[in-house]
Amino acid sequence: MSEYVFAPPAVSAVPVAGGGLFPVRRIYCVGRNYAAHAREMGADPTREPPFFFAKPADAVLTGGADLPYPPQTKNLHHEMELVVGIGTGGADIPVAEALGHVWGYAAGLDMTRRDLQNAAKKEGKPWEMGKGFDLSAPIGTMIPAARFPDPSRGRVALTVNGQIRQQGDLADLIWSIAETVAFLSGLVRLAPGDLIFTGTPEGVGPVVRGDLLEGVVEGVGTVRTRIA
Amino acid sequence: MSEYVFAPPAVSAVPVAGGGLFPVRRIYCVGRNYAAHAREMGADPTREPPFFFAKPADAVLTGGADLPYPPQTKNLHHEMELVVGIGTGGADIPVAEALGHVWGYAAGLDMTRRDLQNAAKKEGKPWEMGKGFDLSAPIGTMIPAARFPDPSRGRVALTVNGQIRQQGDLADLIWSIAETVAFLSGLVRLAPGDLIFTGTPEGVGPVVRGDLLEGVVEGVGTVRTRIA
Repeated sequence: MSEYVFAPPAVSAVPVAGGGLFPVRRIYCVGRNYAAHAREMGADPTREPPFFFAKPADAVLTGGADLPYPPQTKNLHHEMELVVGIGTGGADIPVAEALGHVWGYAAGLDMTRRDLQNAAKKEGKPWEMGKGFDLSAPIGTMIPAARFPDPSRGRVALTVNGQIRQQGDLADLIWSIAETVAFLSGLVRLAPGDLIFTGTPEGVGPVVRGDLLEGVVEGVGTVRTRIA
Repeated sequence: MSEYVFAPPAVSAVPVAGGGLFPVRRIYCVGRNYAAHAREMGADPTREPPFFFAKPADAVLTGGADLPYPPQTKNLHHEMELVVGIGTGGADIPVAEALGHVWGYAAGLDMTRRDLQNAAKKEGKPWEMGKGFDLSAPIGTMIPAARFPDPSRGRVALTVNGQIRQQGDLADLIWSIAETVAFLSGLVRLAPGDLIFTGTPEGVGPVVRGDLLEGVVEGVGTVRTRIA
């Protein structure tokens, strides 16, 4: 058995309600999964296949910690979302079985350097620098799936400094949680520890240093961070 | 200290010449870093800033193992590259200091589901499903940086079934290794274990099941995989 030439990176993990840590393998995000948000981004929310982007596994920010305003952007945006945690992996998972692969749910924020993302989109370039920067995935406490048996409804909302900014409902998802898991598993093999950010409702917008972001997914939990 | 609710993912690692393992934190790739390749992809290789995309840390494929032909593509492409392994992290690293942050070098392949990537590019959508699929990063043995003191020259070549397919030289990189490391560190904080695929020379093309890919970076080493 060969040894590491320097210490390997620590495993990132999400705290679980009641104790325990959900270890993170990969982070995926679904694009434009609410029609009203698709329209506010200038897209046509007709029922095309879902599309996915990713963040580094160690981009999670837990425990309500502060998020330092990231470099190279003047337009940091919030995107409030339901996050799915995969407990049982697989490829080509049927829609009817997909929820059985979910370990738990959490409330999360897909923070976005919108100026970098928009510049990339315009030129057909990759989104990673707009989406996958350090600590770009604040996330709350995860609850086991049994405590949220029906992810087809639930209010998703975000306040900034106490003022409502985003509001939607899981009932308005273009692709259901089961469809999202199933579709993604046809493109990559899912494994325990994968997080899937399931898309954001309308109302995305900029934040500035000092802003307090407080999000909720009804029936799941909350997420909180301050821009430092 | 809280415990994981299931086993955390294993750390991915690259074998080091002479023994030891380089643990992988993140994988970044530079787009269109050779003028001749930029032109073959339909781009204008004028000196715009470098751009980056990513693969999951566990996408490395080591030891010359077979690469199963991935799902959802009919146009799997090879992109032969020099890979940099970061040993000392940092943000906003000056170009003059950048090579001091490099732990080692390896030969690697940025395997690409070109049909998925091209469809995404055309629509301004993210590249992850074209670039960041499972085992999309075959990589050879890493050598310490001291054994490759001048990464500004060296032949980069790939054969498929013994026939030459790609050929270039590090001397033709648009962005040098030091410039690439420095620029990326302004967008994200680099850390030990980060791999950077530094771009591919011209000659990318499709592979089919049974093909044997053998790549070399002169002065660094080789990479090998068979499409299964």
